[in-house]
Amino acid sequence: MIARAAPPTRRENSAPRQLQGARSAKLDRRMVVIAIGGNATYPPNIKGTAEEQFKIIGETCEQLIPFIERGLKLVLTHGNGPVIGNILERMAATAPRLQAMPMDVCVAHSQGGIGYMIQNSLANALVRHGIRKEVACVITQVEVAATDPAFGHPSKPIGRFETAEAAARLRRETGWDYVEDSGRGYRRVVPSPQPREIVEIDTIRALLEADVIPIAVGGGGIPVVRRPDGRWRGVAAVIDKDLATAVLAARLGAATLIILTGIDRVALDFDKPTRRFLDRLTRDEAEALLAAGQFPDGSMGPKIEAAIRYLDEVGGRVAITSLDHALDALDGKAGTSIVP
Amino acid sequence: MIARAAPPTRRENSAPRQLQGARSAKLDRRMVVIAIGGNATYPPNIKGTAEEQFKIIGETCEQLIPFIERGLKLVLTHGNGPVIGNILERMAATAPRLQAMPMDVCVAHSQGGIGYMIQNSLANALVRHGIRKEVACVITQVEVAATDPAFGHPSKPIGRFETAEAAARLRRETGWDYVEDSGRGYRRVVPSPQPREIVEIDTIRALLEADVIPIAVGGGGIPVVRRPDGRWRGVAAVIDKDLATAVLAARLGAATLIILTGIDRVALDFDKPTRRFLDRLTRDEAEALLAAGQFPDGSMGPKIEAAIRYLDEVGGRVAITSLDHALDALDGKAGTSIVP
Repeated sequence: MIARAAPPTRRENSAPRQLQGARSAKLDRRMVVIAIGGNATYPPNIKGTAEEQFKIIGETCEQLIPFIERGLKLVLTHGNGPVIGNILERMAATAPRLQAMPMDVCVAHSQGGIGYMIQNSLANALVRHGIRKEVACVITQVEVAATDPAFGHPSKPIGRFETAEAAARLRRETGWDYVEDSGRGYRRVVPSPQPREIVEIDTIRALLEADVIPIAVGGGGIPVVRRPDGRWRGVAAVIDKDLATAVLAARLGAATLIILTGIDRVALDFDKPTRRFLDRLTRDEAEALLAAGQFPDGSMGPKIEAAIRYLDEVGGRVAITSLDHALDALDGKAGTSIVP
Repeated sequence: MIARAAPPTRRENSAPRQLQGARSAKLDRRMVVIAIGGNATYPPNIKGTAEEQFKIIGETCEQLIPFIERGLKLVLTHGNGPVIGNILERMAATAPRLQAMPMDVCVAHSQGGIGYMIQNSLANALVRHGIRKEVACVITQVEVAATDPAFGHPSKPIGRFETAEAAARLRRETGWDYVEDSGRGYRRVVPSPQPREIVEIDTIRALLEADVIPIAVGGGGIPVVRRPDGRWRGVAAVIDKDLATAVLAARLGAATLIILTGIDRVALDFDKPTRRFLDRLTRDEAEALLAAGQFPDGSMGPKIEAAIRYLDEVGGRVAITSLDHALDALDGKAGTSIVP
């Protein structure tokens, strides 16, 4: 006798509710791309030891297990602040005795280091839960346009907060750009061009096909420009990780993009007594609020831009929320949903 | 009418000659694992700028194109000296202001940086030759035994050559171990345990299956020990990249393992007037010569050990040669062949 699976009952059919709103027939309803924020890897209140980072990343990975237990195809991305700042600073501090590597190579270092920590920690969480599945960090190049205006206007803060005096000295010594950031001090800024394509997209697809959990576009990806002859050349920039994640999720046709941040929902009037949290936004409402200056640069702004970019390219659904609420956000019971 | 391929003629059947000697029926005759040596990524005569490294790696990748044009499934591995030494030195020089990462994380950084350079350069060489194919560096953990005696006897030289005075000072300041190396000065030595398993082996298989060229076990892999509860924990060590490559080639069932080095063939009496080069060795001859001290530690020794390990595990064929001769070595017309 051949056993046949019964048709799914309402209860067994665990396709998350919100996925059913996906616009495009081409979207993979079981694929969820999660952009892990700095709070889930390297929060501001740690000293930055490897032990601390492994501990926090371990806790983060533990919260990703239910996604895997539901049979979803998970894709993970992550930022690289403040790691990239530390790497660049170490390069500068030991040059010219040791050759300083350019920014693209430094991003690659950060992908290796953070990717390893997540890969190791998630593999260990899987072992703990008796799930046999591999996790693999893929070094990822992301194409940007050589003509992107961002190259003339460094805007992305990286690395540590400095005093005004230290920033002035570093600006003199290194030629780097510094700006005041979030009222907490001065930080180096670098160009942050728009991501266009994921160079290793077929590799990431192959891993998903093989049931491997890919970690990709770490730190926004290694920024490369495509030369007229078709070859890729690394450039000095740091791509916003949420925007790179949006392009990745769109190219993969993922039905859900979850952007993790420090707060459980997007707020209006964030710094005012009139602050109120949002459960749901349409793409057009999000764009209007962004234009009205509701979402600051370098914080919620790029997340909203990333959501719009992904929705414009493939439809689907975005959830912006904190790690604690990610699973509920998948079910539409927490976080801020942004829909077409 | 359905077109059918004619049976291959002698000329069309391009399976390289030497592959036919493969012992095990399970070996993949079209799979070639190539361990890229330091001379092909970061030779001793460069200053170490990223431009120099990209130039040399670009030339290396150009020489790998014929392997791909023959339809072989290529797997690349690479060392990480002197990059890992530089990374560790930068960490030490900027601590405690910036938290120094432990050696496992530093190996991960080196995998990201060197992996990116090879991935970018080989992708560009493929573009130049009109071949549509992706290359992807996979961050790779390699399991070692916590009880490996190597942890008590640091022996693997990493990083730059120092004078006796500088080495003595660094030993005092950092607690690191230094030894005299090859008559060229003093170098830091770290434990170099035996590789046991490749944690991300299924990922690498999936990439090959999807026609992606994987770059794996960079720098010998990130050394991890398996704890009693099954979880992996990074340890302070650097695994020999040729030995890690041997384990990888064995697990993948590759019929050919090519170990690149600075000379075109293995020599006996290397430093003596009686020096003679070898075209062919059996596994037992190789072992006897190794035991007789013909192959120095930290140089040809680990390559011979790697060859023996691979041959013992799966049979197949090893070629030790220089990059220039790699293609001829594949055809059995150059290099030193080591066979079961």
